[in-house]
Amino acid sequence: MAEHKRKIRLGAFLFGVGHHSAAWRAPDVDPKAGQRIGFYQELAQIAEAAAFDTVFFADNVAMHGAPGQWGGAPPVYFFEPTTLLASLAAVTKRIGLIATVSASYTPPYQTARLFASLDHLSGGRAGWNLVTSGSDGEAANFGLKTQRRHADRYRLAGEYVDLVRKLWDSWDDDAFRFDQNSGVAFDGSKVRLVDHDGEHFSVRGPLQISRPVQGHPVIVQAGSSDDGQRLAAHSAEVVFTAQPSLASAQSFYRGLKQQVLAAGRNPDHVLIMPGIQPFVAETRAEAEDKYARLQDLVDPRAGLGMLAAFSGIDASQLDLDGPLPNLPETEGWKSRRQLFVDVAQEQHWTVRQLIAFISAARGHAVVVGTPADVADHLEAWHSQEAADGFNIMPPTLPAGLTDFTRLVVPELRRRGLFREHYEAETLRGNLGLSRPVPHSWTPASFPSFPQTDQVAAQ
Amino acid sequence: MAEHKRKIRLGAFLFGVGHHSAAWRAPDVDPKAGQRIGFYQELAQIAEAAAFDTVFFADNVAMHGAPGQWGGAPPVYFFEPTTLLASLAAVTKRIGLIATVSASYTPPYQTARLFASLDHLSGGRAGWNLVTSGSDGEAANFGLKTQRRHADRYRLAGEYVDLVRKLWDSWDDDAFRFDQNSGVAFDGSKVRLVDHDGEHFSVRGPLQISRPVQGHPVIVQAGSSDDGQRLAAHSAEVVFTAQPSLASAQSFYRGLKQQVLAAGRNPDHVLIMPGIQPFVAETRAEAEDKYARLQDLVDPRAGLGMLAAFSGIDASQLDLDGPLPNLPETEGWKSRRQLFVDVAQEQHWTVRQLIAFISAARGHAVVVGTPADVADHLEAWHSQEAADGFNIMPPTLPAGLTDFTRLVVPELRRRGLFREHYEAETLRGNLGLSRPVPHSWTPASFPSFPQTDQVAAQ
Repeated sequence: MAEHKRKIRLGAFLFGVGHHSAAWRAPDVDPKAGQRIGFYQELAQIAEAAAFDTVFFADNVAMHGAPGQWGGAPPVYFFEPTTLLASLAAVTKRIGLIATVSASYTPPYQTARLFASLDHLSGGRAGWNLVTSGSDGEAANFGLKTQRRHADRYRLAGEYVDLVRKLWDSWDDDAFRFDQNSGVAFDGSKVRLVDHDGEHFSVRGPLQISRPVQGHPVIVQAGSSDDGQRLAAHSAEVVFTAQPSLASAQSFYRGLKQQVLAAGRNPDHVLIMPGIQPFVAETRAEAEDKYARLQDLVDPRAGLGMLAAFSGIDASQLDLDGPLPNLPETEGWKSRRQLFVDVAQEQHWTVRQLIAFISAARGHAVVVGTPADVADHLEAWHSQEAADGFNIMPPTLPAGLTDFTRLVVPELRRRGLFREHYEAETLRGNLGLSRPVPHSWTPASFPSFPQTDQVAAQ
Repeated sequence: MAEHKRKIRLGAFLFGVGHHSAAWRAPDVDPKAGQRIGFYQELAQIAEAAAFDTVFFADNVAMHGAPGQWGGAPPVYFFEPTTLLASLAAVTKRIGLIATVSASYTPPYQTARLFASLDHLSGGRAGWNLVTSGSDGEAANFGLKTQRRHADRYRLAGEYVDLVRKLWDSWDDDAFRFDQNSGVAFDGSKVRLVDHDGEHFSVRGPLQISRPVQGHPVIVQAGSSDDGQRLAAHSAEVVFTAQPSLASAQSFYRGLKQQVLAAGRNPDHVLIMPGIQPFVAETRAEAEDKYARLQDLVDPRAGLGMLAAFSGIDASQLDLDGPLPNLPETEGWKSRRQLFVDVAQEQHWTVRQLIAFISAARGHAVVVGTPADVADHLEAWHSQEAADGFNIMPPTLPAGLTDFTRLVVPELRRRGLFREHYEAETLRGNLGLSRPVPHSWTPASFPSFPQTDQVAAQ
């Protein structure tokens, strides 16, 4: 574990032809590439050749934005993430594969099965990024008029993740016998009903797929609100978070590790990986030029749409050159809205400046500079209790990823901060996470997940 | 179309280490192979090298049988079928890929998206085998105490398939512009809400994935009851069915094609493909020996479990050497129960003999003989209005599949009955099915799907 702890974890967060909102308009980007499965396969192979821990895919179960606002950006979800991951598993060998599936609208039996299947077909490299769906547009695709309340979504997610883990544990690791002579294929006493009858779900079980290679696929969590942190402390092994500054990242890191400890878990077994968008080149001038050229292509309408999508803020009526006014809380994306409000206030930004900032990386940190500058940034966050690793969000693809693997990865290796090659066959092994013993987690976790009205503000 | 019509269609129905219930106990079978993704990848490549139209995977969302009966056979669903297909798409180029997803328990938005994704990542080779879930064990994994009534399941499935097709049509084929200069990624007026508000589902849309390569992935249907046939006439393009004899297959074929015509559709655009289990060898004696050796390995308890699983019949208390008694209808698998009752009566079989029959291919036809014998059988069914093609159900894998591709495929080609190579890039193209024009199917289909109580017995 000590060996693992010293190294920086790296994920490649893949997102269409790049995370920057103007990526598809860049002259060196093929805007149609995001529709080709071969494009994603090549990106995963680039990340694997650099020994990245994971590739990571977000998800959303509705079109972004209101009908009248469509068209300014290509949808990035050309592929459904679990089928996309299965395809990548077939053309890679060692890199971890993380897909987002919302706990809001997929039956838990189905999610348990999808990730068990992904774990088997990747040889133990699957991770599930557990989120809740925060928009009315998503709710309307699943028979609801409006989304559920934020706290209710997270209560449901807490029951959901425990139920999924029970289903993964419904087969013992050693259930199979395959005794051709006696006709015993598996030992029926090592397969159990789960008989879950909870507040939101009733599921008999067992799963009709044997226990995943990793025991449980790695549980990733990506909500940074109080409810999201509580869920992470309860169940996550990797936490993806948006933190625009070292100070905010340190505050989040220390607070969450304390909550993990308070939940009776080992803080070293919960890896915190903020997103970061690097613009890197041999010289600072070149890197700044890369950044400026993309920023020049930003359509302010697209930036306003993004502000609306992530925060519930309808900014189309705002004065672009005035300050961000007070904004009411919503039942949507609490932590991202707060991030936008805080950063605008701290930096004394106008609406236009805020939009320019979020057009790049949606609130995640942006670093512009030489390989040494970027490595300095990562090292500072890693050594000062702000991050165990980073989810790299290339501004454009493939160039933003190859710039990083070609320029920054060697610099991190020179500093002894990043692996030369994979240590293990599974994602758990490479992340230094232990393989769950069946049911060992159950008594400590599910019953202690608090009722909404019993939770003190934190 | 005439050219296509003359040829026999062939699917490779892959099922663990073989369809025969004793397959895993055969000396030349590796019983653990069904847990390896590489095994399925190799099988798909064998079928593709022989220019099969499709590989086909069944599904079930619960463990088969009651808890006390587990262990006699390995579960065949080691992989969830959509993730399995995505993996196979990455290692094949031309063969069609059909996965079963039940309309009973997956939200339609999710199913529309999974198959749109599979169609994009396979380059237009996806097919969806639409079934309803017929067991209480499955219902109990999705919050229900018992399954829904048979007729209700099919009414729901009729609404479901139309809604999924509306979602696939929510993007026009020519919506994308990718105009980097003007910043128009796609034409928002070519993407529409579906605003479906039906008896069972309310879905706003649009899908957040562009229109599938094939327009619609090919719709396959596998229920042969009256309700199942009505759904097939309404929506299917390929029908998979269990028919134990030429006479039963002809009756089914003619009846269904008439219903398709009555529904205002072209009968040539609905391909009927019964399952068939071939035991083939250079000589009849050798083929019969193959069959006898597998039958000798059948565990009668496993046969009784299969009888129970497919028909709702609890046969554990029956006299194995007496006739099958009268059996009540259930809300489970209507057509398969009827098939078992009919075939036992026609053949004057004891329960033991019925079990021996269904232990091989679960009620599908079994053919034992030389390559010419098997080709004669296929040709007879194909030329006498019993089948447009066949879903080949190898008794063991891989040997049952390679026997067929090595011995029977060349014989079919000598007779001009099977293709030498693929004609097209997509599954639709290879099956001779046209690409759906958006919305063209809507007025003729959904509103005409009858209310249960208005349907005359057929």
